[in-house]
Amino acid sequence: MNQTPKQAEAFDAVDVIIAKRDQKVLSEAQINWVIDAYTRGVVAEEQMSALNMAILLNGMNRTEISQWTHAMIRSGERMDFSALKHTTSDKHSTGGVGDKITLPLAPLVAVFDVAVPQLSGRGLGHTGGTLDKLEAIPGWRAALSNEEMLAQLDDVGAVICQAGSGLAPADRKLYALRDVTGTVEAIPLIASSIMSKKIAEGTAALVLDVKVGSGAFMKDLMNARELAQTMVDLGTDAGVKTVALLTDMSTPLGLTAGNALEVRESVEVLAGGGPRDVVELTVALAVEMLQAAGKDVNSHDVSAALNDGRAMDKWNAMIRAQDGDPTATLPVAKHTTTITAETDGVLDTLDAYAVGVAAWRLGAGRSQRSDIVQAGAGVEIHAKPGEQVRAGQTLLTLHTDTPERFPRAEEALTGAISIGGSSDQDPNRSVILDRISGL
Amino acid sequence: MNQTPKQAEAFDAVDVIIAKRDQKVLSEAQINWVIDAYTRGVVAEEQMSALNMAILLNGMNRTEISQWTHAMIRSGERMDFSALKHTTSDKHSTGGVGDKITLPLAPLVAVFDVAVPQLSGRGLGHTGGTLDKLEAIPGWRAALSNEEMLAQLDDVGAVICQAGSGLAPADRKLYALRDVTGTVEAIPLIASSIMSKKIAEGTAALVLDVKVGSGAFMKDLMNARELAQTMVDLGTDAGVKTVALLTDMSTPLGLTAGNALEVRESVEVLAGGGPRDVVELTVALAVEMLQAAGKDVNSHDVSAALNDGRAMDKWNAMIRAQDGDPTATLPVAKHTTTITAETDGVLDTLDAYAVGVAAWRLGAGRSQRSDIVQAGAGVEIHAKPGEQVRAGQTLLTLHTDTPERFPRAEEALTGAISIGGSSDQDPNRSVILDRISGL
Repeated sequence: MNQTPKQAEAFDAVDVIIAKRDQKVLSEAQINWVIDAYTRGVVAEEQMSALNMAILLNGMNRTEISQWTHAMIRSGERMDFSALKHTTSDKHSTGGVGDKITLPLAPLVAVFDVAVPQLSGRGLGHTGGTLDKLEAIPGWRAALSNEEMLAQLDDVGAVICQAGSGLAPADRKLYALRDVTGTVEAIPLIASSIMSKKIAEGTAALVLDVKVGSGAFMKDLMNARELAQTMVDLGTDAGVKTVALLTDMSTPLGLTAGNALEVRESVEVLAGGGPRDVVELTVALAVEMLQAAGKDVNSHDVSAALNDGRAMDKWNAMIRAQDGDPTATLPVAKHTTTITAETDGVLDTLDAYAVGVAAWRLGAGRSQRSDIVQAGAGVEIHAKPGEQVRAGQTLLTLHTDTPERFPRAEEALTGAISIGGSSDQDPNRSVILDRISGL
Repeated sequence: MNQTPKQAEAFDAVDVIIAKRDQKVLSEAQINWVIDAYTRGVVAEEQMSALNMAILLNGMNRTEISQWTHAMIRSGERMDFSALKHTTSDKHSTGGVGDKITLPLAPLVAVFDVAVPQLSGRGLGHTGGTLDKLEAIPGWRAALSNEEMLAQLDDVGAVICQAGSGLAPADRKLYALRDVTGTVEAIPLIASSIMSKKIAEGTAALVLDVKVGSGAFMKDLMNARELAQTMVDLGTDAGVKTVALLTDMSTPLGLTAGNALEVRESVEVLAGGGPRDVVELTVALAVEMLQAAGKDVNSHDVSAALNDGRAMDKWNAMIRAQDGDPTATLPVAKHTTTITAETDGVLDTLDAYAVGVAAWRLGAGRSQRSDIVQAGAGVEIHAKPGEQVRAGQTLLTLHTDTPERFPRAEEALTGAISIGGSSDQDPNRSVILDRISGL
């Protein structure tokens, strides 16, 4: 039906869609054209949506994914960190419930003279956004100019700020489309979305935290491993030293999910305390980021920087540099209610996705980009899988400013908690499931 | 990501897309909602496009297809032929090159006191539209009011006119979307598109001409049989007496492809002459339509009505009722060129799709709905597969008002003609490959 493409365009969108629909490999020229034409508005939203679904169901090979990623990078500007005093190392998490690791991690790595440029986003859905968490700190601002960001990287060594709109604009347009068309969960599209921004950003090293389990995009280890390998390959091929850790997201990370609640827990970690799993992952990621940046540093060195106040000093400097007051009291929700254990036994499961949805419904997250989040809302966790609990013991505290939200949050937790006679969950097990490195 | 559908809507579009993406069976409530919400504009084009691609790649079962069809019927008005003098019988072709059968067929069936309401469309792409063909007749008009159409069905017994916009508006919106998103070729969507309009139209009996081969949507017999069975099931379940013939579209039907050229050939058939394959299919479809309408009529009776002038009388009355002059000279293209045989031998193939694209590029068809077609343009065929030809013999005559179109039309015919030492094509073989009936 489409024999006469417009003369000015190299391809016809329908031909590209049909090729992927019929399990063909797209050519580099087709990929470059479709990303560019989509950015220009020549390929319509409904056409890109059909192509996305065909990619989700029929896949792309390594060459196609690489070409797709580089086409997205070419849609926008590239940053340049080469004039900084120190080499750069970045971290990206695929998103999980209670994942506040960026907050203690960025200042911790900066202690060792490696610059950490964390260009972050806001939350949508059941996983919180790093910027939403930091905005719980009075005065802190997320939006920095490129100049402010570069200056802070030289002065403090770490910056967590809003990603500018210039990096991979095709990806931003594409992500908004995937979000409303059921095509978020495509490994080639997830990998190219993440890596196009990281490569365009120009970091020298990158550590990926690929979450696995109910609270993550990737529900099983096999898919997570494929995503991790795809991203490591993309980074390596683009000259970025890239490593991925696969980490558990079957249950929330740490003991809090919610904005101010997670800042509080992060500060505990920076003070040398905090939940065992958060400390373990923060230290492991810091070691990976530092080693990828060429530093001869081990977990003992990194733990020392948490225990002796150097990481906390960097945190305070980083927050102040963005007009935040690290000494200010954090917001607290006006209302709480508790969820208690129904029987004695071992806590078998505390489902990450359910806790994420509950925190979201309590006001910690947003359903639309225009929603305003509650700084104090969220879920506090009092027992982790593998621990012994007693009937009537408080397992969760729910926090919100708007108590009419409690019933739907409680509903989200139905079936999320199970208590058994014994558990194969070791409360001290590692959250790190696997490690994938390039070359 | 989509836990909070808007309170006013029963479902969230993303949940419906994800269900089909993940190979789930959609519920009747989901199907009714998604068609209705799409018609209302609540489900966006890009969302329906993703759902269409998921349906194309993952399929729908018989129950889902039936519910989808009835949801489309409910999106618009239904017609009522019950007050007519005679029972109604309709025909639908899935579209092919040189398929002018509706023109002789409608008046032929009307001879036997069965009313034929042919609500037709214009052509887009390589297959011509019935209305474009009839508009080659000076004065003839396609647009009738419902009252005019019903009056003509009682007075003449046959009407070929433009389908109103009130029948299954969801289908019209959906078809336009599928056309630009590579999702035309989905059997559940093709079947529901055709049958929603035919069931809404209210015909008592329906004969489907499902084309198979290079010039048709369905390139192979297995897919064509599946489409035919799906449509016969839909019609039967809705109380319409439905039969399907599978017919050959590997080579054009008859000896012409183009608007006035096909009218001329149709009039030859109505005069008792015309190409063998066109006559065979016209008679076979007429017998099916009449038997489906309860008439005890055989092919001998039907052929007699072509040979003794009764069908021609009906044709003349039908054209006159719509202000056409059946005695007027038909438009002739200003320029012609010929394609000749390169060697002696048996004509092995004359590819239907290539001839269709050539006729389209000569000006007989349109690339966009707003294009104007040339009445005289098209392809005249001088030899059919299985016939002996000699080097230098004219095989095709190309007609157009705009001779600059010849090169691209000739290009479309590259490789479309093959001449061999012998052929397994019998020039007298039947175009009817199979027959599928309900219950």
